[in-house]
Amino acid sequence: MTATAPFTAEDYRARMERAARSAADAGLAGLLVAPGPDLVWLTGYAPTAETERLTLLVLAPGQDPVLVVPALEAPDAAQAPGAPALTFRDWTDGKDPYAATAALLDPRGRFGVSDNAWALHLLALQKTLPGTAYAALTEALPMLRAVKDAAELELMAAAGAAADAAFEGIRAVRFAGRRESEVGADLARLLREHGHQQVDFTIVGSGPNGANPHHEMGERVIEDGDMVVLDFGGLKDGYGSDTTRTVHVGEPTEEERRVHDIVREAQEAGFRAVRPGAACQDVDRAARAVIADAGYGEYFIHRTGHGIGVTTHEPPYMIEGERQALVPGMCFSVEPGIYLPGRFGVRIEDIVTVTEDGGRRLNRTAREMVIVS
Amino acid sequence: MTATAPFTAEDYRARMERAARSAADAGLAGLLVAPGPDLVWLTGYAPTAETERLTLLVLAPGQDPVLVVPALEAPDAAQAPGAPALTFRDWTDGKDPYAATAALLDPRGRFGVSDNAWALHLLALQKTLPGTAYAALTEALPMLRAVKDAAELELMAAAGAAADAAFEGIRAVRFAGRRESEVGADLARLLREHGHQQVDFTIVGSGPNGANPHHEMGERVIEDGDMVVLDFGGLKDGYGSDTTRTVHVGEPTEEERRVHDIVREAQEAGFRAVRPGAACQDVDRAARAVIADAGYGEYFIHRTGHGIGVTTHEPPYMIEGERQALVPGMCFSVEPGIYLPGRFGVRIEDIVTVTEDGGRRLNRTAREMVIVS
Repeated sequence: MTATAPFTAEDYRARMERAARSAADAGLAGLLVAPGPDLVWLTGYAPTAETERLTLLVLAPGQDPVLVVPALEAPDAAQAPGAPALTFRDWTDGKDPYAATAALLDPRGRFGVSDNAWALHLLALQKTLPGTAYAALTEALPMLRAVKDAAELELMAAAGAAADAAFEGIRAVRFAGRRESEVGADLARLLREHGHQQVDFTIVGSGPNGANPHHEMGERVIEDGDMVVLDFGGLKDGYGSDTTRTVHVGEPTEEERRVHDIVREAQEAGFRAVRPGAACQDVDRAARAVIADAGYGEYFIHRTGHGIGVTTHEPPYMIEGERQALVPGMCFSVEPGIYLPGRFGVRIEDIVTVTEDGGRRLNRTAREMVIVS
Repeated sequence: MTATAPFTAEDYRARMERAARSAADAGLAGLLVAPGPDLVWLTGYAPTAETERLTLLVLAPGQDPVLVVPALEAPDAAQAPGAPALTFRDWTDGKDPYAATAALLDPRGRFGVSDNAWALHLLALQKTLPGTAYAALTEALPMLRAVKDAAELELMAAAGAAADAAFEGIRAVRFAGRRESEVGADLARLLREHGHQQVDFTIVGSGPNGANPHHEMGERVIEDGDMVVLDFGGLKDGYGSDTTRTVHVGEPTEEERRVHDIVREAQEAGFRAVRPGAACQDVDRAARAVIADAGYGEYFIHRTGHGIGVTTHEPPYMIEGERQALVPGMCFSVEPGIYLPGRFGVRIEDIVTVTEDGGRRLNRTAREMVIVS
């Protein structure tokens, strides 16, 4: 399986060269890239499954990129769009892939390693080369994939537009009297109809369930008078969508309307804080201030946003303490919320990309409260 | 999301106690269990997604099990069937979950850690507690989940029967003139119709593609005269299926028939080597000897089998050098193959469980070559 994004071997070669240079600039002897979003982004290769068999891309400044890969999987890896830019080092069952990898590494070097690399593999490398040191890429090179180029931004915008089309579709379905899981299935179907190959989450949090931000969906029957948090996304052509709208079944109360308005203003304030040079924490602070000023600060219980790209959660994070400067091309969510335990929740989320003079929303559906039936 | 297996909090409590005792017997100060198959098996809890936010089960001999969990996800975790046997230690965005975890650990201890724990989390723990040491569970306690109890064996048998029903269904579909990907979609649909909630792989390797054991499926149009390797499986009610049959479109040649017979005999020999006390490598040797004696040894390019349970690939492995003794209740694949590059491949695979007096197949469909149209 390979990513469906329309990148060439030259694109991947350039990304790998850039990554190796960034590693050198960060004082690293190289990067060890595991199957998952880093490997997809650097090579276009995604093994059928992540398993106990070691697959690892070794990038080191001044060396050609090497993919250590199980012999069984080498033919599929050779089909990846980035394969022409790779040297393959395949290994067969019963051989020691860590020794083969170690031969490629500076035995006293410090390496960046994919966040999601398996402990099994990292521990084996640490044992094989006790003089090496390791840092997770989120720590060592957090911005490696953060700034999207023009082709990537087009794919991000297309994923956002598809999620928006799914929201327009869900407005028309019946909510009252149906289970959260049924509306969630509608959302998943709509995302697929609008081009998502992968649906990562379809949160439907009705009434009190909406006050649990990571409640996915359950068997609760949605009732007239419920607030319903709809948070959904996945991958379209290799790039992520993630949007949230909070709808109401029938007429809202005055309090529900007020809380929704506060969250909408907070989301707007977070969006307006987006500009090159601002710190990630500035986006969080701007959104949080609106909610705190309205007296709901203790009910906004998560960070304001997260990066998005070839995965739906990645650096940079919009959170207090994150001083990373925003750079044109970064893409992330702005998603404040208010959660009133046992009662209801409201969250509004757009993906935003940093432009030369501010931010651009990749989701365009109405942020005003939508009434559903 | 929780596993659908019908286990109670008491079942999970007993598993966790047994795991902690096994850890102590292995000289470990405890076990650090990441989201994935270990956590599902020990608690019934599977987070919606594995993310950069730390979720970790800490098991230590003589201590109550503690689940370190993001506050956002704690309400869902509390719904897991094993939750009553857990103490929760939740943490909010911006706090340091590694410090919270470190407080639970012997700062000089050696810990077993899930194979698939993220490097991000392991490196942070190593940094927080530099006096600790770690070993992957496959190294430290490879047999932790290997021996299935009676309730687990029933679920394994049901998953195998469902995969068999899918094979009976696929025999009836048209092969010639259709793409591998279309037959693969049929297989996925059949697995779901027969109760699989998760389809992990549907390999359709026709003609020369069958000679690549991990070819998944592609756009090749299947032709009359093709051998077709069908290898498919996933999870039904939390337990795994994995079976392979190699069918032929129309009449096979004499050579194709001979190669298929050799693989079938090898599979039978591997199965007959299964008995308590035999070593894993004996199963590999028995199957491999048949193929080597027939002159095809160099074309059997993978190990003979792998364990299966709450995941479709786990220890023990049926491979030369693995001296682990077979124990009643273990479940694993016996799947020899012959791969003739550029021409065709044959693989035959059943899941087998070890009984008091030998082995029992959990797949029962014909191993003789099936002719399809």
